[in-house]
Amino acid sequence: MSGYDAAALLAQIADIGTDPRRGGYTRHVFDAAERTLREWFVASAEGLGLTVHVDRNANLWAWWGEPGNDAVVTGSHLDSVPGGGAHDGPLGVVSALAAVDRLQREGFAPTRPVAVVVFAEEEGSRFGMACLGSRLLTGAISAQRAGGLRDEHGTLFADAARAASFPDFGVDREALGRIGVFVELHVEQGKGLIDLGAPVAVGSTILEHGRWRIEVRGRGDHAGTTALADRRDPMLPAAAAVIAARRAALARHDARATIGRIHPVPGGTNVIASRVSAWLDVRAGSAADTRAIVDEVIAEVAEAARREGCEATVIEESYSGEVRFDPMLRDRLARRLGDAPILPTGAGHDAGILAAHVPTAMLFVRNPSGISHAPEEGADDDAVSAGVDALVATIRELA
Amino acid sequence: MSGYDAAALLAQIADIGTDPRRGGYTRHVFDAAERTLREWFVASAEGLGLTVHVDRNANLWAWWGEPGNDAVVTGSHLDSVPGGGAHDGPLGVVSALAAVDRLQREGFAPTRPVAVVVFAEEEGSRFGMACLGSRLLTGAISAQRAGGLRDEHGTLFADAARAASFPDFGVDREALGRIGVFVELHVEQGKGLIDLGAPVAVGSTILEHGRWRIEVRGRGDHAGTTALADRRDPMLPAAAAVIAARRAALARHDARATIGRIHPVPGGTNVIASRVSAWLDVRAGSAADTRAIVDEVIAEVAEAARREGCEATVIEESYSGEVRFDPMLRDRLARRLGDAPILPTGAGHDAGILAAHVPTAMLFVRNPSGISHAPEEGADDDAVSAGVDALVATIRELA
Repeated sequence: MSGYDAAALLAQIADIGTDPRRGGYTRHVFDAAERTLREWFVASAEGLGLTVHVDRNANLWAWWGEPGNDAVVTGSHLDSVPGGGAHDGPLGVVSALAAVDRLQREGFAPTRPVAVVVFAEEEGSRFGMACLGSRLLTGAISAQRAGGLRDEHGTLFADAARAASFPDFGVDREALGRIGVFVELHVEQGKGLIDLGAPVAVGSTILEHGRWRIEVRGRGDHAGTTALADRRDPMLPAAAAVIAARRAALARHDARATIGRIHPVPGGTNVIASRVSAWLDVRAGSAADTRAIVDEVIAEVAEAARREGCEATVIEESYSGEVRFDPMLRDRLARRLGDAPILPTGAGHDAGILAAHVPTAMLFVRNPSGISHAPEEGADDDAVSAGVDALVATIRELA
Repeated sequence: MSGYDAAALLAQIADIGTDPRRGGYTRHVFDAAERTLREWFVASAEGLGLTVHVDRNANLWAWWGEPGNDAVVTGSHLDSVPGGGAHDGPLGVVSALAAVDRLQREGFAPTRPVAVVVFAEEEGSRFGMACLGSRLLTGAISAQRAGGLRDEHGTLFADAARAASFPDFGVDREALGRIGVFVELHVEQGKGLIDLGAPVAVGSTILEHGRWRIEVRGRGDHAGTTALADRRDPMLPAAAAVIAARRAALARHDARATIGRIHPVPGGTNVIASRVSAWLDVRAGSAADTRAIVDEVIAEVAEAARREGCEATVIEESYSGEVRFDPMLRDRLARRLGDAPILPTGAGHDAGILAAHVPTAMLFVRNPSGISHAPEEGADDDAVSAGVDALVATIRELA
């Protein structure tokens, strides 16, 4: 077994960014854990003889041979949600390194440039915008808008990026222009492959999805002395949002709406909150359904805010239409992988951003728990090996 | 104007523990701001010639003359809720220092020992138990139970107290035995004095009150990929609790129920929470009403948890029956203060804990906003002066 076995590579980073309070991993862009992972990636890629460049948006590119256009690019991300699993992101990176290692040992000589990429801030866990690295690269978000994003401590992305030596973030036509095809391997975030009894699938679509921040302003006061009639308590409209989101999603086929993050200020037991922020994540099969769900939540929050004497605003933080991965590439890879099953996903990925610009595909690797964004996320060794095999076959097919 | 003018003393601490994120002040027991306030108090009291002792429970006692039994004790606390106002706690401390200063200048010679006290962790903002310093002193909470309280980072009170040089916390019969009478001056946390057009009132009762922690456990997962039918999302029962608390309190006369603090774990936008903690604060006119409100909330949470496949538990963190301050002392002070109005309060205080052991009274000082536990909390200069005058008269009357 080589040092570039995918499971062994995952084991190398198993202690980086563990989160004792939440369980699992918390690895946010430019934090100590994420910086350590970057250094680990550079050293690992250089150990394979790859040359690592970092682009203006903090994305890492490890080139097999000379960087060039029409490249076959594979990779994923190393950041995590708070308290996330070990595989979401890192599995695609370690599998890419393991695949390059295998191909080198097998004496494969690519006819096109090959690169392993690590995109920055894919989860959007720090600055609220998922796929920030690939959105900046492609121009899907302007440098101005990205620079104005703030983390929960109020730090601007512009300031954090400058401090991390990326003052000049923004669209990168040179980096984008080099990508001939992009294939992202990712742990499956559901039970499709368990049901199918297969280790690896090829992706078909990403559900339309977006994030909305609900801000309710009331009036902070003492929980014991303030009569109910005198209250303007923003927690009530926020609670109405949680319940409305579920009800609105239930009314639509295959839709999901979630509030998993809520932050009352000041957040004291004996204090009526002065304001509450809650983040609404919506995914649905059509733009009309997504819009209808968001509109229903907004209407419920507005009505609850009116009753309580609060003010509510809803800000769209991000929105991504449905992605259909390149059908020819999809079918070609599925055939090459022995008629691998084809699965849609409800999760966003950098591949979804790149799909608007270059032929893009995804490979999903079986997850025995079906759970993701939580410590229980998993990938059994057989499936991880099958994923690397699939990536080896993919690069042989394309490069 | 002396340096021990109450407004001038408040100005001395105006920069300590400011909270730029929440507004107002965050001063929690043993944090840097609270330690600075302790040092400031010691220096201020010593500047008046008082001798400061700290008891085993981190309460500070500044003695005018020799410590002794049957003392007239006044004071309050210096800690705050997160993002609290400038007056809740500190006003009672600075008014006590200003009153001692005035009496010294006037040549008053007390016939009983006089002390100014600062109780620790009155708000319970760090370890969840309000009036922790006075509860430990009186034995209202056992050392064992207090030692097992944890702050939001998981630190035990036992460890924090040891680190702050209070390893031996617990009931303190000597300190309690010295108190002959306790009078706490406090900013009013409502609009009673505005409505009455008076600057100072004498307290009559504290509403029965308690805190319950609601813990809902579900299953963390990906917000995009997990079908609604497969979810066990603890946010839904938590939202039901917020709404049930309001409904249950509305159904009872003069009752209050509040959830101002809620904490989903891990708390990511694209993550279904694995568990949610929410804190329920209930105050009502009778034990039956308090119990009925809590029971109604528990029933609603249990039903919502059952529907969602979650587990819910509710833990009573603290409970205090109605307090009736000593009626003879109350009427004596009201007469001495020119027939000052008599007002009840819904807020807990150290005076409420001490009232079970020694004759205890409270003085409330007018708050132009009526708001408390928020940056808008206030006390106009005239009312602050009237409060000091009232405390001077009170000490003259009692000592």
